[in-house]
Amino acid sequence: MEPYELSASEAARSIREGRLTSESLVRSCLERIDARDPGIRAWIHLDPALSLAAAREADKRFVAAPSAVGPLHGLPFGVKDVIDTADMPTTHNSPIFQGHRPGRDAACVAIARSAGGILLGKTDTVEFASGGRKAATRNPLNPDHTPGGSSSGSGAAVGDRHVPLAFGTQTGGSHIRPASFNGIYGMKPTWGAVSREGIKHYAVSLDTIGWYGRSVADLALMAEAYRLEGMGTTAPVPLAGLRVGLCRSPVWSSIEPAGEAALHLAASRLEQAGAIVVPFELPEEFATLAEVQDVIRRGEGRASFLDLHLSDRHRLHPELADHCEHNRGITTRTLTEAYDVAGLCRARFAGLFEGIDVILTPAAPGEAPKGLHTTGDHIFNGIWTVLHAPCVAVPCTQGPNGLPVGVQFVAPRFADANLLAMAEAMAPAVDPGMMTA
Amino acid sequence: MEPYELSASEAARSIREGRLTSESLVRSCLERIDARDPGIRAWIHLDPALSLAAAREADKRFVAAPSAVGPLHGLPFGVKDVIDTADMPTTHNSPIFQGHRPGRDAACVAIARSAGGILLGKTDTVEFASGGRKAATRNPLNPDHTPGGSSSGSGAAVGDRHVPLAFGTQTGGSHIRPASFNGIYGMKPTWGAVSREGIKHYAVSLDTIGWYGRSVADLALMAEAYRLEGMGTTAPVPLAGLRVGLCRSPVWSSIEPAGEAALHLAASRLEQAGAIVVPFELPEEFATLAEVQDVIRRGEGRASFLDLHLSDRHRLHPELADHCEHNRGITTRTLTEAYDVAGLCRARFAGLFEGIDVILTPAAPGEAPKGLHTTGDHIFNGIWTVLHAPCVAVPCTQGPNGLPVGVQFVAPRFADANLLAMAEAMAPAVDPGMMTA
Repeated sequence: MEPYELSASEAARSIREGRLTSESLVRSCLERIDARDPGIRAWIHLDPALSLAAAREADKRFVAAPSAVGPLHGLPFGVKDVIDTADMPTTHNSPIFQGHRPGRDAACVAIARSAGGILLGKTDTVEFASGGRKAATRNPLNPDHTPGGSSSGSGAAVGDRHVPLAFGTQTGGSHIRPASFNGIYGMKPTWGAVSREGIKHYAVSLDTIGWYGRSVADLALMAEAYRLEGMGTTAPVPLAGLRVGLCRSPVWSSIEPAGEAALHLAASRLEQAGAIVVPFELPEEFATLAEVQDVIRRGEGRASFLDLHLSDRHRLHPELADHCEHNRGITTRTLTEAYDVAGLCRARFAGLFEGIDVILTPAAPGEAPKGLHTTGDHIFNGIWTVLHAPCVAVPCTQGPNGLPVGVQFVAPRFADANLLAMAEAMAPAVDPGMMTA
Repeated sequence: MEPYELSASEAARSIREGRLTSESLVRSCLERIDARDPGIRAWIHLDPALSLAAAREADKRFVAAPSAVGPLHGLPFGVKDVIDTADMPTTHNSPIFQGHRPGRDAACVAIARSAGGILLGKTDTVEFASGGRKAATRNPLNPDHTPGGSSSGSGAAVGDRHVPLAFGTQTGGSHIRPASFNGIYGMKPTWGAVSREGIKHYAVSLDTIGWYGRSVADLALMAEAYRLEGMGTTAPVPLAGLRVGLCRSPVWSSIEPAGEAALHLAASRLEQAGAIVVPFELPEEFATLAEVQDVIRRGEGRASFLDLHLSDRHRLHPELADHCEHNRGITTRTLTEAYDVAGLCRARFAGLFEGIDVILTPAAPGEAPKGLHTTGDHIFNGIWTVLHAPCVAVPCTQGPNGLPVGVQFVAPRFADANLLAMAEAMAPAVDPGMMTA
């Protein structure tokens, strides 16, 4: 087994046990990228010498003080190119930012490095994680299909085993959907639990940093690095008796046969493994949350792109300039109404978990669509983004085109650690082949 | 009259009428700073050659196309040093960021430049606009007293006529309070109406960019540059019959005699000028909003300082490290409860304006306190910050120490343009000597 084939948690264990060096892991990942990326195009920027030097430093630190290393010690990670990095360019896949070097790490990158992680490179993204220019990235399982977006490169890079961990972002469904399309695990933590400083703003009350891995344990390593409340103190959760609310969600009319099949397969596997699956419906007032997400996204996007619209309008994609030029029916009145519905639903959400422990719901309508002109539909994600709820995507099955289809688990705000513990218990049932690990 | 004595709107008119050049205005401001700042210490960084070159460019653009210039054309502005600037350092008054050059303008600076403004320099601030190290700035009206904070330098610079406009930020009361302490006008727009990209994050759901000037018309120039909804289309508001809700607020027990006197003086002047002043009380559920603001500020501050706490803990002020190290009773449960009270109150706030058009309430407890170890108390500001409501500070009177005491006007979310129109009508009554203009 080559080092690049190890999941993050497997590699971390090997490094801690002295059976693997960070340098050999990074080298193996770089070789994998050399072999695969010409066809996948997940990466915008790599700096092998820099990453290898950081890995050698990490190996030295381990030798000097094996017990003092952080949870991500020696593990390479990829960074969506809307997230600032001190020693690599940050382009946002925008002509305005070609070659831009912000000179400082975004908070999430600085923390990952403090926890021992090795920055491997920057991954392709939809322009500003928003709209306009798509990533050049292809789905590693079928290059004629999208890997999803806007976290296209990070999803494909982890899916194709270029790197064990990578960062994405989600404002609508940019993080969880690509997890499903690439057959990997993804976590979007509670809004605000991880600093967004140093990432492009789109809709500040929705924007969330997320991460990809190839197991729930991988996701937990990152959650530990960010010191999410309850990490390290939450007990394992038994699957037997776990009450899973099967939520088709208010946007069920957008489901495709493959998405429906995955949801029901996940539910039946969980039942067979001892969980109690019950139907779960969101109350009436949650019915408009997908629209609420769109109104907030566009309404806040107006302020977020105004600087580029005024200073550099010819290089800003017309789709993004449109946020500033036309209100498309989104006024401060509709934005205020959307804020208030969102606030009301957020306040009620935790109270819905009386008869259930966790929500099981689609991660995407179905398989990754064909073509690179689309990144798929975020309709099954926007609701949970606007609720600020933590979400974990877990692979489940394949669709008619042989492409992966996952599901997601959702918990109340700030129940991130408990959600990870429940996902750890459920994943072996939902993803029995551990497709990706 | 020297150019530096002109308010922003007066200077803008003179420039448009060809009676003043931007270069002579900038030169006059720099001379004023030379004469005054050794005693005031409002500025952390100045680059006279750069500012003068930008002013000369602006003068050339005006000659080439006098009708094509923006609302801030040729006007120098100061920038609180937690806001990124492309061609000047951004230090956050932190040892970690000494000499740091982010290489890009924060969105608010980029927009001000696109509107024709000239960056004059960076103003001193409380460390990261949060806590820890205080600004070295002194109150221009009495150097033994604080100018307030955390927007200390910007408030003092506009108060002492070093520059006609300056940016501050507000998470608790960092913008409106210094306006009162320095006898100037200040606006905190609706949360989210102006992009916070490129400013230090503290508590993302509270952080707001604000600006200072020496008249309501000055504040309106900036609001126009940010294209706040309704600017340019809102009709002037007659003072006669305007219904002003006199709100002592749930934190009235913190008022000082000078703050109480200013509030009642403003009310009686407004009544004499034809406004209808009625008592206004916030409903019971708003009673805890000052505490809610503190919980959100500290709760979100934990994520905001974690990167520096992990990567550079010895240079992070202990007061800020404390956000990460100790929860001080603020858990994700209390944070969630605070979010929900905030969301509920925000949703109800606009509905309280049935019998009134605008709220009149204290901008600060009283005069600026003595000493530079404090920046005063934000207790009268946190409520409105957490409500995301636009606020305009207007000077009113002097306290027993001869220091200024202002009041503030508050309107529902996104009523920024209407608030400015109402403030324009009220200011001549509240501030009859136009103390600052």
